[in-house]
This record gives sequence, C-alpha cells and structure tokens, in this order.
Amino acid sequence: MGKNLRIAIVGSGAIGSYYGAKLAYGGSDVHFLMRGDLTELRSNGLSVRGQGENFRVANANCYNSTSEIGASDLVLIAVKATSNADLVDLIPPLLHKRTMLLTLQNGLGNEEFLAGHFGTERVLGGLCFICLRRTSRTEVERYDYGHIVIGEYERAPQLRTREVAAEFTRGGVQCSVVENLALERWRKLVWNIPFNGLSILAGGIDTAAILRDADLRQTTLGLMEEVIEAANKCGYSLERSAASLQIKRTEAIDAYKPSTLLDWEAGRPLEIEPIWGEPLRRATAVGASVPRLEIVYALLKSLGEAGHRNKSATNIANRLS
Amino acid sequence: MGKNLRIAIVGSGAIGSYYGAKLAYGGSDVHFLMRGDLTELRSNGLSVRGQGENFRVANANCYNSTSEIGASDLVLIAVKATSNADLVDLIPPLLHKRTMLLTLQNGLGNEEFLAGHFGTERVLGGLCFICLRRTSRTEVERYDYGHIVIGEYERAPQLRTREVAAEFTRGGVQCSVVENLALERWRKLVWNIPFNGLSILAGGIDTAAILRDADLRQTTLGLMEEVIEAANKCGYSLERSAASLQIKRTEAIDAYKPSTLLDWEAGRPLEIEPIWGEPLRRATAVGASVPRLEIVYALLKSLGEAGHRNKSATNIANRLS
Repeated sequence: MGKNLRIAIVGSGAIGSYYGAKLAYGGSDVHFLMRGDLTELRSNGLSVRGQGENFRVANANCYNSTSEIGASDLVLIAVKATSNADLVDLIPPLLHKRTMLLTLQNGLGNEEFLAGHFGTERVLGGLCFICLRRTSRTEVERYDYGHIVIGEYERAPQLRTREVAAEFTRGGVQCSVVENLALERWRKLVWNIPFNGLSILAGGIDTAAILRDADLRQTTLGLMEEVIEAANKCGYSLERSAASLQIKRTEAIDAYKPSTLLDWEAGRPLEIEPIWGEPLRRATAVGASVPRLEIVYALLKSLGEAGHRNKSATNIANRLS
Repeated sequence: MGKNLRIAIVGSGAIGSYYGAKLAYGGSDVHFLMRGDLTELRSNGLSVRGQGENFRVANANCYNSTSEIGASDLVLIAVKATSNADLVDLIPPLLHKRTMLLTLQNGLGNEEFLAGHFGTERVLGGLCFICLRRTSRTEVERYDYGHIVIGEYERAPQLRTREVAAEFTRGGVQCSVVENLALERWRKLVWNIPFNGLSILAGGIDTAAILRDADLRQTTLGLMEEVIEAANKCGYSLERSAASLQIKRTEAIDAYKPSTLLDWEAGRPLEIEPIWGEPLRRATAVGASVPRLEIVYALLKSLGEAGHRNKSATNIANRLS
C-alpha cells in the first residue's frame, strides 16, 4: 500500500463531492458512487468554487453501484447517518483484505456502526471543518475552512493513518492526524450540538443571528458547557475553554447556516441520533447533567417527525421566505 | 356595590367572549368592548357551544370604545398581554372611585402592570381553567373545564372578592376565591410553561402528542419540576406532587392545543413574557436553576420574531397541513 490508493467515495452530497473532487483534481485515483442519473455529471464534470479555488474535474469516475467500482484501498463514507443501513449492502463489493473505511460523518456512533459490520481494524474516522453548500448536482461551493482531522477508531494512529493524511495533503486538503479520535469528536460536538440544533429550533436562523441574540447566546454557552462536562465524565479531557474559544471562532466567520439547517430547509432527514441522541445517551450513562441537551434532542426528534408529516407545507414555506 | 355590578369586558378573544357571554346570559349587566365592525355581532349575537351548553346572547351590548361604555364597577381584562400597552388608554374611561380591575390574563406580571398604572387596591386576578377556541367573530366553543379561580393582588380576599365570585356563580361559572393569588399563578404555570411552549417548539403538536413521546414527556416533567423549584425559592409553598398530578389530569382530557399554539398557528403575537420571560426573571433573581425554562424562553422569543418575518409563509404552511 502507500502509493496509488484506489479510493471510493460513498455518499456524494456536499462533503463527499468536495473531498472527492479535491483528491481527483490532485491526481488521486477516485471513484464516485453517484446513484441516479449520471448524464449531467458526465457532461458537466464536478465543479468546486470557493475562496481562492475554482476548478472542475472534467472526467470524474462515476458509478451507479459499488460493484462497478469494485475492491478499493480506501472508502470515504459521507452518506447521511440516517442512511447508514444502506451501507450494509453498499460496502462489501468495495472490500479487499485491507480496505480502510474512513467515515467523514458527523457525531457519535458511526465508527461503531462500521466496526460492528465490517471489523474494528478497518475503521478510521475524520472530522471535516468546513462550510460547504452543494449548489447543484455537479457543483459544490465552499464558504470557509476546509481542513480535516483524521484518526484511528479506538487506537493510536498507524502508518496507514499518515498515508491517508498524505493523500489528502497531495490533493490540497490540509489534513492532520490525531491521537484520540473520540476526544476530537466530542470537541466538534461542542459546536454542532448548539449551533446545528438552535439554528433549526429558533426558527431557521444562522450562526450570526444566534450569537446576536443575548438569550440564544447564553443557551449556546450553556449547551457547550454541558457537552464539555459530559465528555469529561466519559473520560475525555476536553478543556473548559473550548466553549468560549468556539464562540469566538464562530464570530470570526461569516453568518453560516449549519448543515442540519440546510437539511431541514431542503426537507431532508436530520442526523439527530449521531449529533444529539448518541451523545445524550452516553452523557446519561455516566451520570452527567445535560438538561439542555435533553430538551434540544426531544424537540428536534419531534420536529423531524412533524417535518415528515408536513414536508410539502414546509417546503412551500421555505420557498416563500 | 354588590348587586347589579356594571361589568365591562376589555378584550373579546375566546376568554373575554366566553365569560362575558356567560355573565350576560345569567342576567349580569355586561358591556363588551369589541373593536372593529359590530354589524355581524349585532345581527348574530354571541354564541357559546360546548359540553352541555349551547346558548346565544342575542342582544350583547357591544361598543367600539371604552368611553361609550363609561364608568363600570368591574372590568374583566382579557386582552393578550402583548397588548397591555393599549390598556393605559382603554381603562381610564371605565374607572370610578372603586372600580375593580380583574385580569384574566395568563402568567406573571399583569397584576403588577395594572397596579402600576391604576393603583394596587383596584387589582384582582383570575385564572381560567378552560379549553376554549373562538370559532368565529360571534362564536366560542368550549372543549373542557370552565371554572375560574380569583384572588386579590398582594392581599387576602376581601368582601368584594366574594361578591365578584358570586356574580360568576350566578352566571353558571364555577368560581372559587383563593387566599394567595400569586401561588395559584405559579401553580398554573406548572402546566402552561411546558405544554404551551413544547406544543409550538416540537412542531405544532397537541397535549396528547407531547405526552405520547417519551422524551417530550420527560422534558415536560423536567420543566414542571423547575417551575415548582422556582416557585418555592420565590417563597410560595407549591407541593412537588403538582407535576405528576397535572400530567395525570392532562391525560384525562382530550388532545388539546394550548392557547399559545393557536396564537402561533393564527400568526398572532405570543404571550412570551408573562408565561416564560417573567417567571424566568423571577427564578433567576432568587438563584433557582432553570436551564430548561431558559432554553424554551430563548427559542420561543426567537421563533416569535422569525414568525413575524415569515408570517405569510407560516400561514400558508398551516393551511396546507
């Protein structure tokens, strides 16, 4: 292994399209699973626009099934966690003995899911620090950041971890390797739990609007402190200062709609379990007090269900607003 | 005073229309402030439908201004608290030296508002335990309950308190007098704070749907416990069992949409300050821990503002759902 990794991208939303396009444009051997009509992709290619970058992968390798892609060395998994059940059938055709599965999904529980189905030793996890929006089937726009952080599931970094990072670096993606992936997942949740949740619950507002409102800002901080407390009770030494640091960083970027709000506005299913449900269950299991997380989870779950009931109505409302 | 109280009804939504109609039908001397076109009311009268009652007040005394009503002995105040500022001009024409002001509004702060503008000794408060819906400008439907509880603002009941209660009783409204009005306001908030709030935040669902969902039910209980704790820290001995008792009672009634949800669906302003804001401020002032109340308040306030921005969109969504 090492050079010429054969890379499969499973899940071609904003995240899968962006990182897959970066790798392909950088010369990696990338193969996209793109279910549905491929005509447009084959004629237009896959475009990326963003701060200081503007490129097109003219001849992206697109497929309708993972059997057509076949055995690969590295699988980037970027489907919504709500579609994880599909992976049980999608992944096997991609596997050889040492295929690595790198989940770029949000929240907690995705590595465990992959480990349970395909073996612990295959699994790596990555956290994407990026503000993206898929603007069409063939174009992704990047608003800010872009770097990713990867690590091994339940073990320290291996030689292969550095090789995967090097592959990203060659593609122009800043990629660092972390000792403790789970700690980093909790650290990212310090941001996602308040901002992704409140942006929906407070009526469809962006990060700047949340921080402008004194009460929502206080609520954001309260949620962040709960997450830090829960992480620490779970055994991860996440520093208290993470809360104020992340608020400061969020103020430094432009007003931004978190991915879950974009999902909500588009009527797509919400990743409620990995971002709120699983952290809540882990917090509760170790006796952490997380009343704000509890209520945010309960409300989002109910809204998600109501959203399915009223999907057509919501979409009309969003188009008008 | 005593017999033949001249009664003015200020605010003719569901509450004002129902209790005014009951009193008028029972023979009281009732005068309704009904701003807007009175033609329909004058031709149709005011109708009440409900469990075991179905009557019409054919000749309701309706007025477009309180000057036309003139000095009254008792003023029932049933405007939305969001319109309290209007009362500063509406009330004075109704006052003689001993005019009583009985606010039937929800939550905390309304007695204080009236006392501040018109004198402490005029003020009484009432709590309406009733499930109502105004079905047209001239008809109100009662789904359940109907009794009211009244008391004096910041003092024990007086002779006049019993006289007002007797007036309601003559009109067929079960009315009891309480020693401590503020305690009863907190007790009612144990219900309103969770149910009115969650019904909106969880996506427009009724009381039965809230209690059917295990997580929302837990959240309801958590909010109730916070309110009880806050009331006790404020010096009101509200028993802990109020939470489970109110949940049990709510399960005994039909699925019900709280008044704030009806306001939300109709695009009307929400009574956020008396139901959530003022209790939160009082709880915080005495050092009670109310994280759930904090987040519910912050979210509703933001939603209320977003609601104003997207009013047309929301109404369309509601009509479709």
